Amino acid sequence: MNLYGDSRSGNCYKIKLLASFLEIRMVWIDVDVLVGETRREDFLGRNPNGKIPLLELDDGRCLSESNAILHYLAEGSGWLPTDRYEHAKVLQWQNFEQYSHEPYIAVARFIAVYQGLPEERRSEYESKHEGGYKALSIMEHQLDATPFLTGELPTIADISLYAYTHVAHEGGFELDSFPAIRAWLKRLEALPGYVPMSGSGP
Amino acid sequence: MNLYGDSRSGNCYKIKLLASFLEIRMVWIDVDVLVGETRREDFLGRNPNGKIPLLELDDGRCLSESNAILHYLAEGSGWLPTDRYEHAKVLQWQNFEQYSHEPYIAVARFIAVYQGLPEERRSEYESKHEGGYKALSIMEHQLDATPFLTGELPTIADISLYAYTHVAHEGGFELDSFPAIRAWLKRLEALPGYVPMSGSGP
Repeated sequence: MNLYGDSRSGNCYKIKLLASFLEIRMVWIDVDVLVGETRREDFLGRNPNGKIPLLELDDGRCLSESNAILHYLAEGSGWLPTDRYEHAKVLQWQNFEQYSHEPYIAVARFIAVYQGLPEERRSEYESKHEGGYKALSIMEHQLDATPFLTGELPTIADISLYAYTHVAHEGGFELDSFPAIRAWLKRLEALPGYVPMSGSGP
Repeated sequence: MNLYGDSRSGNCYKIKLLASFLEIRMVWIDVDVLVGETRREDFLGRNPNGKIPLLELDDGRCLSESNAILHYLAEGSGWLPTDRYEHAKVLQWQNFEQYSHEPYIAVARFIAVYQGLPEERRSEYESKHEGGYKALSIMEHQLDATPFLTGELPTIADISLYAYTHVAHEGGFELDSFPAIRAWLKRLEALPGYVPMSGSGP
């Protein structure tokens, strides 16, 4: 299996982290979004949406969207519950991540870290904070009640939300008033197989 | 089962449509977003994110996020493939819908239909068109190759994308140059059990 990704991207890190937890071997192929490598013809042939991460199976079939890739890789493992309701709860949190969390927290970080917070994007950057803090407060509410997002055990929903939450400060978010989130971050970082975001791919 | 929803919302219509295809009975409870009914304490107790649709099971447990609810309801039916790769492909398209389709096409429609295209949101409305047309072109590319988004048979991915695509014109999108999408819309509308978006809930 090949994983096309950028080691600075939280969406790509999700795959790296699960692969490490599950000891799945894959070849990491670096793709640099900033110089347009996802807009090149060979990449668009694999993913017409021009986005990373992209998983390429040994038979050549491809799969995009970080949360779909996590689901594919986690099937049959403890990271994806088989109970019908719990399974749907994992997807609920992953959809929350894509719609109500990533567009605020990851985009604020992108503007600050990748683009160096240029003046013409400052108001957009600042406008991301309200939505981002709302997402964090919803996570805090849940993590105050259960150790992981869907209950007693970690699932791929935790990996999806961990990816950008643990670097939220890079987008200007303070976690001081979210003790349950901070405890949850530490809980995930203590699991066997945990790897940090920085450094080369899996 | 209770479904809290707004009959004008495409995200809620997804649930109504699948329930009709599968002949699932549920009580539809109307919630009006525009007058703040999703911000009331009793609703936030069921969904801290304050969003519809929301499914409430007979035992009181709740599930939010339209695509997660579809997954829950479709499990065990032909609308959700059991093959590992095909299952993940369904999720790929549903994540695409939430991140690359809905924020453009549904939001443009919201500004035009719900808000009456006020002058102060016109530039935002117009800015949605580039991303929306990109999403449509990616769908067209796939539907030119296969009758449904993941292959030969309809899945909940088709329902997720159908919901806002079939009313894309209300957000100012022209489908004239997307013949494969138009044929796919007709294909879904011809399926037994199809119900239109307008009218009361299931």
